[in-house]
Amino acid sequence: MFSKFFTLSYTRVRRRFMRSSKTGIKWMLRNKELPLMVIASGLFTKEVHAEAKQNLDTIIKNFMAEPVTPRETLEQESEEMRVKMELMIMGIQAEFCRALEKEENEFPTKFKVDRWTRTEGGGGVTCIIQDGHVFEKAGVNISVVHGNLPPGAVAQMKSRGREFQGSTLPFYALGISSVIHPRNPYVPTIHFNYRYFEVKTDNGVHWWFGGGTDLTPYYLNEEDSTHFHSSLKKACDKHSSEFYPKFKDWCDKYFFLPHRGESRGVGGIFFDDVDYPDKEKAFQFVTSCAKAVIPSYLPLVKKHKNDGYGLQERNWQLLRRGRYVEFNLVYDRGTKFGLYTPGARYESILMSLPLTARWEYMHIPQEGSPEYKLTEVLKNPKDWV
Amino acid sequence: MFSKFFTLSYTRVRRRFMRSSKTGIKWMLRNKELPLMVIASGLFTKEVHAEAKQNLDTIIKNFMAEPVTPRETLEQESEEMRVKMELMIMGIQAEFCRALEKEENEFPTKFKVDRWTRTEGGGGVTCIIQDGHVFEKAGVNISVVHGNLPPGAVAQMKSRGREFQGSTLPFYALGISSVIHPRNPYVPTIHFNYRYFEVKTDNGVHWWFGGGTDLTPYYLNEEDSTHFHSSLKKACDKHSSEFYPKFKDWCDKYFFLPHRGESRGVGGIFFDDVDYPDKEKAFQFVTSCAKAVIPSYLPLVKKHKNDGYGLQERNWQLLRRGRYVEFNLVYDRGTKFGLYTPGARYESILMSLPLTARWEYMHIPQEGSPEYKLTEVLKNPKDWV
Repeated sequence: MFSKFFTLSYTRVRRRFMRSSKTGIKWMLRNKELPLMVIASGLFTKEVHAEAKQNLDTIIKNFMAEPVTPRETLEQESEEMRVKMELMIMGIQAEFCRALEKEENEFPTKFKVDRWTRTEGGGGVTCIIQDGHVFEKAGVNISVVHGNLPPGAVAQMKSRGREFQGSTLPFYALGISSVIHPRNPYVPTIHFNYRYFEVKTDNGVHWWFGGGTDLTPYYLNEEDSTHFHSSLKKACDKHSSEFYPKFKDWCDKYFFLPHRGESRGVGGIFFDDVDYPDKEKAFQFVTSCAKAVIPSYLPLVKKHKNDGYGLQERNWQLLRRGRYVEFNLVYDRGTKFGLYTPGARYESILMSLPLTARWEYMHIPQEGSPEYKLTEVLKNPKDWV
Repeated sequence: MFSKFFTLSYTRVRRRFMRSSKTGIKWMLRNKELPLMVIASGLFTKEVHAEAKQNLDTIIKNFMAEPVTPRETLEQESEEMRVKMELMIMGIQAEFCRALEKEENEFPTKFKVDRWTRTEGGGGVTCIIQDGHVFEKAGVNISVVHGNLPPGAVAQMKSRGREFQGSTLPFYALGISSVIHPRNPYVPTIHFNYRYFEVKTDNGVHWWFGGGTDLTPYYLNEEDSTHFHSSLKKACDKHSSEFYPKFKDWCDKYFFLPHRGESRGVGGIFFDDVDYPDKEKAFQFVTSCAKAVIPSYLPLVKKHKNDGYGLQERNWQLLRRGRYVEFNLVYDRGTKFGLYTPGARYESILMSLPLTARWEYMHIPQEGSPEYKLTEVLKNPKDWV
């Protein structure tokens, strides 16, 4: 009987501990089996920790590199959102890189992996394919940085309507950011970025998520755009039916080049300042979005990577990549935030730039041409779903 | 006797009128020969105007296009600095374009000339060679714009320490701006820009000149850098021995990419807010600088345009052009001022971008290589004269 009860207690303690040590303790305190539980927990805490560690090791084994935060901290602070976020984005990085590598299978090309540290605090993992057969330049970057917010970066945030009280402003910023520039002009460029911020101010800790996924085709394929948007909508709808229309609209507004009066591409979703409905649910929403990248994009790569094309299509692709550079360097807040953050790794920030870009004076596509068809939709964003 | 005096008066009136009609009137009022002068001036004003007009026509005939300001206004307001400046920069544009065209003589290539108008006031003349044999992209742009200063542009000026009082802020901005990207990697890229501003505020009219000329080599040639800097120094020294050292230093500071910790090129001169010693002398100084462009640069084109090079040199040139794009789009005030000015002609602003640019992740030249030698001098600007 004792043995049976003991085994039961053991199993319960273990299960509870596996879920969360804090919840486990509360449960034990409420539980009548407390005296025996204490013995059981005392005996098995070591084993439970060993198992948690083993689970973490198994997760990390699949990553492209060792996470930025030491394993011990990841284990000890497993309930912190920054730890959950780091493990989530490292997982997404690995899944996405492996999926892209598979598309290069005829001429095996592997991601080059650079794990880097930032003197001021934190670091990152940058994965790059350059001059691949399918991907001319593909970058998937993780950054996990902390320190005190520099004035330039605060200015970038203030323009979003945030006013932080405090002189030092300690912060954590974690994110995954990726831009894929395929070689074939019929395969669109994709960009996605999911990030989490924490800023300690005189009025307490502020936190929020931001992110988005958007598509930049060189030639318009309505079926592809619809597939892409549907995948994102599906991910959003799981959380709130209000998200997709709101964030689709935000995306159209954000990825816009005022001086040219055109969008960067056919859009997708974009959001910032997401601190609703609560931290856990916001994280679940961001996770869904990040997980939607592969199903939204990989089918387009598979479908078009072997399409035939000539010099004219290549030239057009390079001109459009020039516009991509214009957007990223003139308007993109993420790029500016990066370049103005002291000690930022510019190679990782600028990996979003294409291998080659072109600027021709007064290049205006002929009316009715496939190139013209794209510019028309860039001037008048439409609903794809 | 009357006839002789009459002829004398005629010659004097004519001479005075040719100098300036305002000064001429003062002179006549002071002059004892007034009664006869009035008759003389009455009879010959028409002829004098005809001659002034003919002179203007002769000057304009050599320009790449009709000036932005109507000929009648140019004639009537010939004493205004904005008129003098417009005629000066239109002259420089024509001289420079013709000199470059001559370098293309083996495969005749002419500048494409676009005269454009700006709905909000003013316009410009953009001259472009694209895909030439010697010049891959060469742009020489004049803009003569006026209207009311937009908030974005005021912000760009305020960061220079200027605070303008007034709600509408009518302005005139005139300038010549040029970037030449040669095909041969041994011929450096040159940029120059000379401009004049006038802003009407509640406290009166503010005016100032700005400008500069700077060189961006792909491979370091110390002799070329010295020749280039000496030519600019000579132009500066005619006006003040303080100008060259001051403006050389300003140039090194301005054309600097903080995120890469390197200069754009080997510098030259750069200045802004020049309203000293007086308007006329400041104009003479700016004219000297503008006239120094051809002797500072053309010898380098002639010397290297037929140098042998291979794919490695071409690739390095394209990577350096990527840095050029980074500077122009992220940091250059002129580009920002342009892009934030409503109705600005972005094709003319962005003509400074190279035909092709390249970004490779983590491209670090091998220590001791010619490419490395260049990066060393970009990290540590030196004195060339």
